Amino acid sequence: MSRSPDWLHYQAEVHPDRLALMTEEGRWSFDNLDADVARFAGILSDLGIGRGDRVGYRLPANAAQVILVHALTRLGAVLVPLNTRLTARELAPILDNADPALIISDGAPFDWGTHQPKTRTMEALMETTSKRRVWDSTLNFDDLHALVYTSGTTGVPKGVEITVGNQWSSALGFALNAGMLEQDRWLHVMPLFHVGGLTILFRSVIHGSGVVLEPRFDAARAYQLLQDERITLLSVVPTMVHRLLELPGDAPSLLRLALLGGAPAAPSLIDAAHRRGYPVVPTFGMTETCSQVVTLEKSEVTLRRGSSGHPNLPTRIRIAAGETDAPSGAIGEIWVQGPSVARGYWKNPEATTAAFQNGWLKTGDLGFLDEDGYLTVTDRLKDLIIRGGENVYPSEVEAALLSHPGVADAAVFGQPDPEWGQIVAAAVVVSHSETPTSIQNFLSKRLASYKMPSIYYRVEEIPRNASGKILRARLQQDASNLVKWVDSHDL
Amino acid sequence: MSRSPDWLHYQAEVHPDRLALMTEEGRWSFDNLDADVARFAGILSDLGIGRGDRVGYRLPANAAQVILVHALTRLGAVLVPLNTRLTARELAPILDNADPALIISDGAPFDWGTHQPKTRTMEALMETTSKRRVWDSTLNFDDLHALVYTSGTTGVPKGVEITVGNQWSSALGFALNAGMLEQDRWLHVMPLFHVGGLTILFRSVIHGSGVVLEPRFDAARAYQLLQDERITLLSVVPTMVHRLLELPGDAPSLLRLALLGGAPAAPSLIDAAHRRGYPVVPTFGMTETCSQVVTLEKSEVTLRRGSSGHPNLPTRIRIAAGETDAPSGAIGEIWVQGPSVARGYWKNPEATTAAFQNGWLKTGDLGFLDEDGYLTVTDRLKDLIIRGGENVYPSEVEAALLSHPGVADAAVFGQPDPEWGQIVAAAVVVSHSETPTSIQNFLSKRLASYKMPSIYYRVEEIPRNASGKILRARLQQDASNLVKWVDSHDL
Repeated sequence: MSRSPDWLHYQAEVHPDRLALMTEEGRWSFDNLDADVARFAGILSDLGIGRGDRVGYRLPANAAQVILVHALTRLGAVLVPLNTRLTARELAPILDNADPALIISDGAPFDWGTHQPKTRTMEALMETTSKRRVWDSTLNFDDLHALVYTSGTTGVPKGVEITVGNQWSSALGFALNAGMLEQDRWLHVMPLFHVGGLTILFRSVIHGSGVVLEPRFDAARAYQLLQDERITLLSVVPTMVHRLLELPGDAPSLLRLALLGGAPAAPSLIDAAHRRGYPVVPTFGMTETCSQVVTLEKSEVTLRRGSSGHPNLPTRIRIAAGETDAPSGAIGEIWVQGPSVARGYWKNPEATTAAFQNGWLKTGDLGFLDEDGYLTVTDRLKDLIIRGGENVYPSEVEAALLSHPGVADAAVFGQPDPEWGQIVAAAVVVSHSETPTSIQNFLSKRLASYKMPSIYYRVEEIPRNASGKILRARLQQDASNLVKWVDSHDL
Repeated sequence: MSRSPDWLHYQAEVHPDRLALMTEEGRWSFDNLDADVARFAGILSDLGIGRGDRVGYRLPANAAQVILVHALTRLGAVLVPLNTRLTARELAPILDNADPALIISDGAPFDWGTHQPKTRTMEALMETTSKRRVWDSTLNFDDLHALVYTSGTTGVPKGVEITVGNQWSSALGFALNAGMLEQDRWLHVMPLFHVGGLTILFRSVIHGSGVVLEPRFDAARAYQLLQDERITLLSVVPTMVHRLLELPGDAPSLLRLALLGGAPAAPSLIDAAHRRGYPVVPTFGMTETCSQVVTLEKSEVTLRRGSSGHPNLPTRIRIAAGETDAPSGAIGEIWVQGPSVARGYWKNPEATTAAFQNGWLKTGDLGFLDEDGYLTVTDRLKDLIIRGGENVYPSEVEAALLSHPGVADAAVFGQPDPEWGQIVAAAVVVSHSETPTSIQNFLSKRLASYKMPSIYYRVEEIPRNASGKILRARLQQDASNLVKWVDSHDL
């Protein structure tokens, strides 16, 4: 079993005076942060928290949370970050599954509902006095490090089992792709309860790069921090890029990489960002791969439009077509193998067996690899429409719809049909002067007949989640309430 | 079991046009090198070389050797680099132990002695035509990658079992310590048959940094290459630093790190190098740790004089004092644990059991850790003198001798003695006007009486190996032939 010295303590020994953390509350060098973590780990240890204990926390993105996260890591405890946006009803199945020994929350009132977990407030814990200090530890790569619950727009949330080794490999995979500079510093504007935000805290202590942590994304403030704090690295979702581009100035020159996660990014957004000096690059990853495992290099963005990049070493990707690998360019399910792939879902053998197979993660995403090994993600497997035995990829039909000048936005999804099994449905945002005939004629020159939408809904807005992903499941469920624009039989 | 895509092929996909290799013979991009390796791996494959086959080679440091090394790696074969300085008699026990399926040599005549291995010349192999191309492979981290024989100034050479995972971890450990820049490029002046030279070739393909490979070290030419080829990284032994400092110019400004291996470096040499802009840093490592696992940062050189640095993540070091860890500052045997530690000695269970224990490598070196985890290497365990039950560290007595203005060089070693078990012997290079009494009086103010040399030999020169290490074993063996200067009984 592989082990490592405690990452934060290592940085405190090697780079004691380097900035580790800055928040609205103050600044911590690695030495300061190590001391606060040693003290807080002592407090948690007095409470009986130790190796393998699951500790839930529902906290704002502040310094206390960072100290907690590193203290739990040092003790070998298991992090269970709770999404602060979820209601008690939504948290209930997570708490049922994780069954944490303790939950740490901020002082704000929160109705835990029928669940009555053992809770402590962070404020009270921080004020506890303890003589114990935990200065060091040995991290075991095979140990469970965190249970991160997938947001799953439908169904019961699953607790992804992230190991210590997953965090380590994720940090190194990023470095191999992006390089590591002594002056690297992150601006952290992502939720800490998602894997993308959590991994940044561990990249920080593995690489020795500081983190400027913001409680939420505010474009003007972010821009100021990029400049004032000499930020080199940034992780964002598309909406944040839009907001930054609305500001007058070009990107500060020290910013060397802005990793774009969440929803697939429109190439036009990336182009616009590059014109303003923002080094935005698309990535691909998920909770089950401990954040991104595929990244496009800055220099490739124009050449490989629409691609998410090349798998980071040593991650391997295969495109599964049944039992064999799909040839270059052919779409299939994206499978991922490598040391940052999680080991399964906590106490969920069925979901684990379904998704993890011989060391491979079946992502449920569809895509293809080009001849140089670059990945393009096309659709979610569950969004695939099978019409009369033919595969229809919603993204392809959406792209065709969006290329029509009268279509402002579009979402394509399957609807059950007695004759075809499924038919292709399209929700479109169109101007009042637009006609269905114009769109249908336009599409017929671009798409095979079996890909043509059989039914159109006219909507005010395409429903999307916080990361910008289209909520197809909701469209499918709500189709009966949508305003039918036209049925292709009538065209 | 962890795996990785083929490293070189990865770089050819991601950085096809970047410089991979430059030698006197020409320049290769990663794309070119990948193609040459694909072709040569095809030729080797036609010869029946495949996974697990051991292939010896005795070749000059040229492009053909680099192509061979990557081709063998791609095929999953085991590299057995042979030291070109060894005679047939010295190679015999290595060939007995490694029992290679094939040996590849250059065309130069070489008397293989009683051994009649199956040999091919590199020239003939390169000219072979083959339709087969091996473009890709999956590397298994647990596979044996190379048998590197320790030079061992005495005794039978041992074949250190370097795994694919050791190479990977060594490359990452270096990056975590030194950072990784897109423009990184190595000047390679080290022998390719030692682990230090071999690992640079794999750092190159794992990091995507180019290598400018020289067949031998020539200071003036090296200096020119540092400038012309925009070199950022260099690996050297002390003699090379001396030679570079004899040149008129200061270090070219792009050079960001010069790793000093081999013999422990005199702090004065490092100071002199820094004054001239050479970013020389001491390191500690050995064949069994797949090159350096401890490195001092540039900024620490003055503050931590004499230290070799802090263990690279995730390497752990303990100082063994019997069954327990020695406290900070106390000398003991240096033990190393981590993913770059080799798995043992090939077909040598006795030596393996003696040196490897529960995942720890007992290095046979003595040293101490300071309170911040920085290592200082003092002596080889086998050089330790035990006089009447008291430990005497040769390095300490040598330092005291060298601080005497009349002593130009000195080596201290143990000699058997019926009364004390061992006595302290010193070989010194002194001017003719120097007297033993002056030295003995000088030392008596600096050393406890049990550390004082009991016998002095006057020599013209201290015997050292190519890396500058004192050959104490030779001094011990040849003591009867040395010119006795004085016996302390006579003082």
